[in-house]
Amino acid sequence: MTKSIRETAEKIRKLEVQGARNVAIAAINAIEASAKQTRATSKKAFLEELSKAKQELFASRETEPLMRNAVRWIISQVEANREKQPKKLTALVSSSVRQFLKELEVSKEMIAETGAKRIRNNSVVFTHCHSSTVTHLLKRAKQQGKKFEVICTETRPSCQGRTTAREMLEIGIDVTMIVDSAARYFMNEADLVIVGADAITSEGNVINKIGTSMIALVAHEARTPLYVVSELLKFDPATIYGDYEKIEERSPSEVWQDAPEGLVIRNPAFDVTRRDYIHGIICEEGIVSPHSAMEVVRRRYPWVFAQSTS
Amino acid sequence: MTKSIRETAEKIRKLEVQGARNVAIAAINAIEASAKQTRATSKKAFLEELSKAKQELFASRETEPLMRNAVRWIISQVEANREKQPKKLTALVSSSVRQFLKELEVSKEMIAETGAKRIRNNSVVFTHCHSSTVTHLLKRAKQQGKKFEVICTETRPSCQGRTTAREMLEIGIDVTMIVDSAARYFMNEADLVIVGADAITSEGNVINKIGTSMIALVAHEARTPLYVVSELLKFDPATIYGDYEKIEERSPSEVWQDAPEGLVIRNPAFDVTRRDYIHGIICEEGIVSPHSAMEVVRRRYPWVFAQSTS
Amino acid sequence: MTKSIRETAEKIRKLEVQGARNVAIAAINAIEASAKQTRATSKKAFLEELSKAKQELFASRETEPLMRNAVRWIISQVEANREKQPKKLTALVSSSVRQFLKELEVSKEMIAETGAKRIRNNSVVFTHCHSSTVTHLLKRAKQQGKKFEVICTETRPSCQGRTTAREMLEIGIDVTMIVDSAARYFMNEADLVIVGADAITSEGNVINKIGTSMIALVAHEARTPLYVVSELLKFDPATIYGDYEKIEERSPSEVWQDAPEGLVIRNPAFDVTRRDYIHGIICEEGIVSPHSAMEVVRRRYPWVFAQSTS
Amino acid sequence: MTKSIRETAEKIRKLEVQGARNVAIAAINAIEASAKQTRATSKKAFLEELSKAKQELFASRETEPLMRNAVRWIISQVEANREKQPKKLTALVSSSVRQFLKELEVSKEMIAETGAKRIRNNSVVFTHCHSSTVTHLLKRAKQQGKKFEVICTETRPSCQGRTTAREMLEIGIDVTMIVDSAARYFMNEADLVIVGADAITSEGNVINKIGTSMIALVAHEARTPLYVVSELLKFDPATIYGDYEKIEERSPSEVWQDAPEGLVIRNPAFDVTRRDYIHGIICEEGIVSPHSAMEVVRRRYPWVFAQSTS
Amino acid sequence: MTKSIRETAEKIRKLEVQGARNVAIAAINAIEASAKQTRATSKKAFLEELSKAKQELFASRETEPLMRNAVRWIISQVEANREKQPKKLTALVSSSVRQFLKELEVSKEMIAETGAKRIRNNSVVFTHCHSSTVTHLLKRAKQQGKKFEVICTETRPSCQGRTTAREMLEIGIDVTMIVDSAARYFMNEADLVIVGADAITSEGNVINKIGTSMIALVAHEARTPLYVVSELLKFDPATIYGDYEKIEERSPSEVWQDAPEGLVIRNPAFDVTRRDYIHGIICEEGIVSPHSAMEVVRRRYPWVFAQSTS
Amino acid sequence: MTKSIRETAEKIRKLEVQGARNVAIAAINAIEASAKQTRATSKKAFLEELSKAKQELFASRETEPLMRNAVRWIISQVEANREKQPKKLTALVSSSVRQFLKELEVSKEMIAETGAKRIRNNSVVFTHCHSSTVTHLLKRAKQQGKKFEVICTETRPSCQGRTTAREMLEIGIDVTMIVDSAARYFMNEADLVIVGADAITSEGNVINKIGTSMIALVAHEARTPLYVVSELLKFDPATIYGDYEKIEERSPSEVWQDAPEGLVIRNPAFDVTRRDYIHGIICEEGIVSPHSAMEVVRRRYPWVFAQSTS
Repeated sequence: MTKSIRETAEKIRKLEVQGARNVAIAAINAIEASAKQTRATSKKAFLEELSKAKQELFASRETEPLMRNAVRWIISQVEANREKQPKKLTALVSSSVRQFLKELEVSKEMIAETGAKRIRNNSVVFTHCHSSTVTHLLKRAKQQGKKFEVICTETRPSCQGRTTAREMLEIGIDVTMIVDSAARYFMNEADLVIVGADAITSEGNVINKIGTSMIALVAHEARTPLYVVSELLKFDPATIYGDYEKIEERSPSEVWQDAPEGLVIRNPAFDVTRRDYIHGIICEEGIVSPHSAMEVVRRRYPWVFAQSTS
Repeated sequence: MTKSIRETAEKIRKLEVQGARNVAIAAINAIEASAKQTRATSKKAFLEELSKAKQELFASRETEPLMRNAVRWIISQVEANREKQPKKLTALVSSSVRQFLKELEVSKEMIAETGAKRIRNNSVVFTHCHSSTVTHLLKRAKQQGKKFEVICTETRPSCQGRTTAREMLEIGIDVTMIVDSAARYFMNEADLVIVGADAITSEGNVINKIGTSMIALVAHEARTPLYVVSELLKFDPATIYGDYEKIEERSPSEVWQDAPEGLVIRNPAFDVTRRDYIHGIICEEGIVSPHSAMEVVRRRYPWVFAQSTS
Repeated sequence: MTKSIRETAEKIRKLEVQGARNVAIAAINAIEASAKQTRATSKKAFLEELSKAKQELFASRETEPLMRNAVRWIISQVEANREKQPKKLTALVSSSVRQFLKELEVSKEMIAETGAKRIRNNSVVFTHCHSSTVTHLLKRAKQQGKKFEVICTETRPSCQGRTTAREMLEIGIDVTMIVDSAARYFMNEADLVIVGADAITSEGNVINKIGTSMIALVAHEARTPLYVVSELLKFDPATIYGDYEKIEERSPSEVWQDAPEGLVIRNPAFDVTRRDYIHGIICEEGIVSPHSAMEVVRRRYPWVFAQSTS
Repeated sequence: MTKSIRETAEKIRKLEVQGARNVAIAAINAIEASAKQTRATSKKAFLEELSKAKQELFASRETEPLMRNAVRWIISQVEANREKQPKKLTALVSSSVRQFLKELEVSKEMIAETGAKRIRNNSVVFTHCHSSTVTHLLKRAKQQGKKFEVICTETRPSCQGRTTAREMLEIGIDVTMIVDSAARYFMNEADLVIVGADAITSEGNVINKIGTSMIALVAHEARTPLYVVSELLKFDPATIYGDYEKIEERSPSEVWQDAPEGLVIRNPAFDVTRRDYIHGIICEEGIVSPHSAMEVVRRRYPWVFAQSTS
Repeated sequence: MTKSIRETAEKIRKLEVQGARNVAIAAINAIEASAKQTRATSKKAFLEELSKAKQELFASRETEPLMRNAVRWIISQVEANREKQPKKLTALVSSSVRQFLKELEVSKEMIAETGAKRIRNNSVVFTHCHSSTVTHLLKRAKQQGKKFEVICTETRPSCQGRTTAREMLEIGIDVTMIVDSAARYFMNEADLVIVGADAITSEGNVINKIGTSMIALVAHEARTPLYVVSELLKFDPATIYGDYEKIEERSPSEVWQDAPEGLVIRNPAFDVTRRDYIHGIICEEGIVSPHSAMEVVRRRYPWVFAQSTS
Repeated sequence: MTKSIRETAEKIRKLEVQGARNVAIAAINAIEASAKQTRATSKKAFLEELSKAKQELFASRETEPLMRNAVRWIISQVEANREKQPKKLTALVSSSVRQFLKELEVSKEMIAETGAKRIRNNSVVFTHCHSSTVTHLLKRAKQQGKKFEVICTETRPSCQGRTTAREMLEIGIDVTMIVDSAARYFMNEADLVIVGADAITSEGNVINKIGTSMIALVAHEARTPLYVVSELLKFDPATIYGDYEKIEERSPSEVWQDAPEGLVIRNPAFDVTRRDYIHGIICEEGIVSPHSAMEVVRRRYPWVFAQSTS
């Protein structure tokens, strides 16, 4: 195990790296750095090193399907290649990492292009938490000269909504912040809800920041369309066999620093939004129905399933 | 205008007195104190003094129907009485104030008795914000030897859920706190939702702390019964002619102390819960349907309507 | 039977008099004219004349509860009075007719005042068909200086929406007309739906122009509040014992002038809007819940029920 | 305590007398028989005897509001009367019992008349369990010459649907029987659901044979109107303060005679149908909204509430 | 650009050719005619001619995915073929056009066969507007000897329902016409709704004549199954990246010939029916779920996506 | 036709073999036995024998897609093989049968593994009827040391719930039995519903024991997740072209042995559960969305469609 893997895993564990995208980038960069220091003298040994790196990185946080799929893909490239020499495999790792990063970039642009079309002049867009994919999309719409407003929640307990608000202000988009529980109060004023995703399940549900499912219900009640923006690689193949158990529970102190003794504080970081409340997933392929998300992923990224057990 | 009225109105305005019940008690106590210092020499003059006091108190906060109804009732007692002498009318004010306070107490007990029956052993009761009527009811159920748990939200922005949590801990009820947006995550674990009320409208809707309507929707989605506990005198006769415009908006700084310039923060204190999401209103009469709330109030407190225009 | 009764009944039958309000006014004016020509020499004979007039008027159209209640009330005034002389009873009829007309006027103003409060600046108000009560309300809001828009359906087959549109234009309210089936397309742009009523049933449902129930469903789907404006005297006591059978079916030629032979055209004039899709009934008492409409009517107009079997 | 009271209570307890109506009739007949054998020498003693009879009868079965209200009414007549002589009070009991029975009869006819109007030619009427009020209504519609069909469930575990089926066959109404769980399969073929009631609650819900709430949900899903036929005196004043706890659980052997050891069989006799799934309650007053049922009862039978605590 | 292309585009623009199917047929016939007059001397030039024809035809109307896909397919055949000689390519265009038309015919039959199975004896089938695919299906069911009725709306503003009605009468199917807004009034009498489609989106929604989405909502409320009949080639690949903006707005004069000045008339030709209200899409493959429509199209017609950007 | 085919078909017809799995196993075992006695001297003759066997088996019961798909697959293996000699084809039939049975076994294990993950400690699992796949899954969860309870319906008319109950007791799982119509009464206590399937349709609906659709609706109302466990090979390709007509109606005597003359008893064995009420189908691939079930089957078992017309 190289230092770069250990350190990166540690940073992920401690939330020093955050956001599905950033975590994935950090992980594969660490894989590349690690591969460059390989001491392997055979492909088998090289793959074993990669496997250990994978295990370390996977263990660093529970629900990070994008990172996991990224690592799986890099390794699958090595496995599939006929090359046997570790040196050349190192180069292959590097080029695969470059390719993956580039494709991530392309996906982001494609999502921004597609999603921006859903925003019209005078639209009011509701969002929750902070998602760099969402804010990138909103910036794109702004660059296209559209005039629209954003309503964002503060997103307790960590108030990532403040980051969203700041980014909107920086680029001159009118933004209104509300407490999370005011979502229903303001929903009738919104034309559209756009949220990010942490994971997509085999049933077509979306796992995202706690509160998303409630906002989705509120949007559904008001016939306000809700779109999830997400790379398809956030699909979590483990959900085919698993369930909701892996919702990370974070520290109670995020909710109440000096809570009285005896008080139980439950602090789940995510919740599950039903496919029925999602109009579409805006992804690198355009807009797809959540109900057939798994088939889309299977068609596009068959290797995700091939490796899903490891 | 006496000092007691001015000071009380000021305290209400500055939120030094909070909670529908406390505000009502402070207001009629001030009326009594004020009446004792009357300089009126005729009943007409006495009533004019009362009318001015009423105006001052009514102006102190927008939505306080219980306080308004309390003041209206005291004055209606004076008006209806044949007595002409200010002195004796002062005594009448005092006895009316006593009677009103006593009936408030009786209502609270009746609500606690009735509501406690809805809590069974091993129930999980979900609540939002802090309501002394709700916590009184929960204490009653605990005193009856029932073993149950409470889930309470923190209730942003002012975190009144902490008060609820502390009260539960003090009397030995197991309590779990969550962020507001986690309501849907935990709703399937709850057997029952109980919330308070700030006002009841002529349509049968209930105005309560921001977020209540969202929790009601979430409860409805999960077929979890939601009960509102409230004195019927929180019925607001102005709603017969008015609308939702009077939802108080509080200071943005409650939400974000040093928000960046340019950011609009909307901070409504209440929202409106639809009658369709309310199983029943637990009041001084027992449990009634919200859909006929206005008729119940008309039958029980006809004077509320007689004075509703003033 | 006097000529005035016969002629008025004929006009109602032929739809020369239209609109619940106009029909009621015509009927009681005819009663008054008829009473003035009485040949009765006893109260009994006088009442018999009134009873015949009532039967003739009631037979002129199927669903006209306002007219029926108006006639019932005039007769109940005669019955209840101790006066025995036909001459004086004639005067009583006249004064009762005046009083009823005046109260109709007061109701209309009260409805306009209350309903206008629900319209805010920049509101978009959706309406269907033509109702003089609705347009009076909209004019009131306009007079109050509010700036708002109206969307109205054309309302097939008779296109009463054109009358609504013209009235809006005359008073300078921005108005958009759409075909009936476009209601769902535009509903998300509306803040509020306001419609009139032809009858209110004992279950709390509202009978109004065909299409109203569909618009109500569409409003419900979009969480857009729908209000019915109506005098409570449109309550039909016959519904306590009856059902939907009395929905008038009008001539097929209204739908298609020269339809091909063999084609069945069904042309019901009204449909039934469920109480669950109605936020409130705006009436002479303010806003009430449709679920308790019958109790409101019983409290306010007990004589409606006393006479309901005749 | 007289023998007639003891025996009647015993028969009720052992289900030898069944059906809300039959139980009520048996109870007040027993009261009358018992009153005739009074040994009381004062009104006070007479009332004490009645009170003991009441307690014995009330204890015989948990949910029998009609019987309870009947007994309450008889006693309230005695209490309110100025007569002091036990003999004459005995006569008063007799005449009150006669009057109550007659009014029960009148209610039944009124319900049949009103409900029969809801049945049209070629209607398909769905019903559950056996209710003499429902079958009386169906017979009335048949006598009126209407041609319609009935679908009835078998109604496990006691198969009261067989009684319904037999009664239909006897009077020549086409009837189809299905298993309870096939209700959704056949609901789209039904035009109307009519069921009886065991109790009406203060919230406006209806307690009836287990399965009713499921059929109501299924009817709601298919937009098939559901009517409950019930005397208003099935309103249970205890529900104002109580809850669902009193749903009788009957013997497991009704479900499975020789169930294997260790198997828990739960056999609740009733369930609670939400007011939202009920179009109307067809009662002695005609059709009323369930949402205002309590107010209707209060207006019509105020004594029900006066005595509700005893 | 040949005259045949220009003329056909003009006819499409002026609505002289109507109906997705007819427009597609006209367009590819024009392509064929145009190809026959080619002056190209190279494949490249030939393809350029085709590309110009495509642009002209695409510009003639906004939402005609079937036509666009037809044109795309013809061109893709030319592109994929190894042939270089314009003459032979002309022949290839011809044979491709023949093949496409034949497959359209096969689809229509397959749809009729499959859809006819959903119609049973005594069924009441509800439809909206005029769709030759729908009426073909109904004729098939009739030919199979089934006895059923049709309810059709008049379909304002252009009253295409009259064409449907006439076609039904011609082949002896009982048909009832209603105004559009009476759909909810009659929905409980229908066993099934069948409508056509103008476009299918990547989310699985269906774009069809204005009013379809409202009828779908009404059918959903009544648990009446709604089927869309449509060739899968009405899938619009542009929706993957686009939105609802392209709903054609037609002339206000269709709605009101001499509307008063100042009146805004909005006349959208289509609306969007949510996938959740559609039981199935009956297409050339049989019945498929709308939620996976895009995957079905991808599997069957991968070339639709290859060319979607052009 | 061999004796083994005739006898097996007869057993299936008489319900001596029951359960989709058992029927499929019996059928392909009969095919194998029959193949071993072949008198064919050419592949063509051999295939004709198989075809006759198929017809006989298919005719034995209406809805048995698993059996049909099993037989189709065996035959497709023979057809696809280059071997011409009947003897060797007999061996191929045998090995194909072995392979199919093995894969059925693997599927069952995979379903049990995946489904068991959905059961947590203290879960309450609701089930209906008896499904060996469901009980296998429950046993697996129990073997994993999880502590949970099962609620099962009795499942009229044949009371297969008793079999479920007995199996649960045998392996020490706490089980409660209720009548079918009590499902809604107990649904709020359940964490999860798991049911089997007889067929999956092209729309993504599931056909299972009568009552399943009602339980699914009740689960949906209470936000209780419902999973269907089923091999994907229960997909019925005939549904692509067909409809619900094939729901088997069984003998009235199952419902009432000595029903009175004239009583119609309808006894459908299955009903159709809408895809919208199903959270996921737990199959040999893991958990998939019902909305894309057909695409999953097409991807995995393309031969099912190739042969679907025969």
